[in-house]
Amino acid sequence: MLLVGRRADLEAALRSPRPDRIELVHADEVVEMDDALVVAMRTKRNSSMRVAINLVKEGRADVCVSAGNTAALMAIARFVLKTLDGIDRPAIAAVLPNQKGGVTTMLDLGANVDCTAEHLLQFAVLGSALVAAVEDIDRPTVGLLNIGEELIKGNEVVKQAAEMLRLSPLNFVGNVEGNDIFKGTSDVVVCDGFVGNVALKTSEGLAFMLAGFVREEFTRGALSRLQAMAALPVLRRFKRRVDHRRHNGASLLGLRGLVIKSHGSADAVAFESALRRGYEQARHHVLDRTVVEMRPVVAKLAQANREKHPAADHPAAA
Amino acid sequence: MLLVGRRADLEAALRSPRPDRIELVHADEVVEMDDALVVAMRTKRNSSMRVAINLVKEGRADVCVSAGNTAALMAIARFVLKTLDGIDRPAIAAVLPNQKGGVTTMLDLGANVDCTAEHLLQFAVLGSALVAAVEDIDRPTVGLLNIGEELIKGNEVVKQAAEMLRLSPLNFVGNVEGNDIFKGTSDVVVCDGFVGNVALKTSEGLAFMLAGFVREEFTRGALSRLQAMAALPVLRRFKRRVDHRRHNGASLLGLRGLVIKSHGSADAVAFESALRRGYEQARHHVLDRTVVEMRPVVAKLAQANREKHPAADHPAAA
Repeated sequence: MLLVGRRADLEAALRSPRPDRIELVHADEVVEMDDALVVAMRTKRNSSMRVAINLVKEGRADVCVSAGNTAALMAIARFVLKTLDGIDRPAIAAVLPNQKGGVTTMLDLGANVDCTAEHLLQFAVLGSALVAAVEDIDRPTVGLLNIGEELIKGNEVVKQAAEMLRLSPLNFVGNVEGNDIFKGTSDVVVCDGFVGNVALKTSEGLAFMLAGFVREEFTRGALSRLQAMAALPVLRRFKRRVDHRRHNGASLLGLRGLVIKSHGSADAVAFESALRRGYEQARHHVLDRTVVEMRPVVAKLAQANREKHPAADHPAAA
Repeated sequence: MLLVGRRADLEAALRSPRPDRIELVHADEVVEMDDALVVAMRTKRNSSMRVAINLVKEGRADVCVSAGNTAALMAIARFVLKTLDGIDRPAIAAVLPNQKGGVTTMLDLGANVDCTAEHLLQFAVLGSALVAAVEDIDRPTVGLLNIGEELIKGNEVVKQAAEMLRLSPLNFVGNVEGNDIFKGTSDVVVCDGFVGNVALKTSEGLAFMLAGFVREEFTRGALSRLQAMAALPVLRRFKRRVDHRRHNGASLLGLRGLVIKSHGSADAVAFESALRRGYEQARHHVLDRTVVEMRPVVAKLAQANREKHPAADHPAAA
């Protein structure tokens, strides 16, 4: 375990003697949560974030886990590590619990707001490869986030992406709707970063409101408190079941290296989840799997493109 | 109360003697949930939906409430009633409960998937006028749904819409995020129909999953059942508080007439909410208020447009 940061800060935070498995790597400065991208990228060239990502690039670390500024982490990771072949833009993926007792992997969650159909296809490959590797599912199901059949069927980009996904070798199950995320209709849900971010934040908001209501109702007077006490074991079990800390750790996908973004306000339990997620991704060779999964998609799209435009000398569509 | 449908069906469903305040209006046919738009619009010209909307157009009804096919209802309403001055497209608005104990009005929820900044501005006016009239709030706060500050700040359309909202006479409080819907940060949350629909469906999915988990945990063996029984009064109070049936009834806004869309699977309690919502909107003259609120927006944008392009002979931007 390489711990990157200002040495003095790290030493002050660690209990002594420091466990053997922790090695300190000094960095002069730290990207702050409110630093502008230009500061994070240009001014602070020796930030802990930059040093940590460099460790991944140099092969000294298999994965970087950070709870810092998301935009800075993404920008630095992209600049230092570069994207994989066939990937135009990295994406942010996270897992959400579903009704089936498993998790649904959703991406993009905010790295890309104006997406083309090709981007959505690339996200699908990234998500599929991640789930295939980590959860050991041979061909994860992939759903494309869209809106109800009874209304106008999605926007142009989504329609086009569905077409491309149907052509791809992925296990595409078609359109899914917002409620399918928590139903667990597909292993992977693909959407642009704007929609994904809104869906995620809306869910967080709803969960927070409901938790507040439960707390209020169970503390409304002495009788309610007693009743709550009686139901405490069940409430605790429920709480454990929906504990969002277990799902902490978003994956920056599509890069030539593994990077995990923990929630900035993560406690020890939540941060452990992020570390574990990074560890599992490295152990299951997510990057190799992604490279393998990407190849036939690129090939198939190039072929489809050639068939559509036989005269033109088109490069691969994705 | 005018009840529109096949007379025989209506009579079979009503208890006899029929209450005096209910008048039956016969319609030859019914738009089915899976009817294509062209069938609903062209083939079934005497559908109950069409007849009901016609009653609004003719001034015989102040509002139409339907639990039928959303796309058909929207298309027929738009065709028969037409949009208000300054409104390009009608929008679908609904209320969601928020942490503050009030409701947040959100639109569009799926009528428009590819929106321009002007459309978002129009939605903002529609939502603001609705809340102002029905909830008797002088200048409702309006938030524009966007994604986190730490990421790239929203897409181009949203940025442009924010600019226009700042110029408008509306009480625009700036960008809000997904979690702000349930926080109640603003009275009105504006977004395009794709994003709105996903956010709404995602919330429904999460609520459904959590309700299922609670049920499971409280019925897991005899002891849990006992504990649940002890907590039953509190659980009931909580359930009443988050009962989505109270919020049933989406508003089709921007038309020259009031139309409410109830959830297709609404029970009596839920449908009553939709009826009540329609009644309240008519009683509070939502249409008049909308017309009044729309005027300065159109004027202000026209002026801004003239200042930007003094030479050109531009019509109003919205």
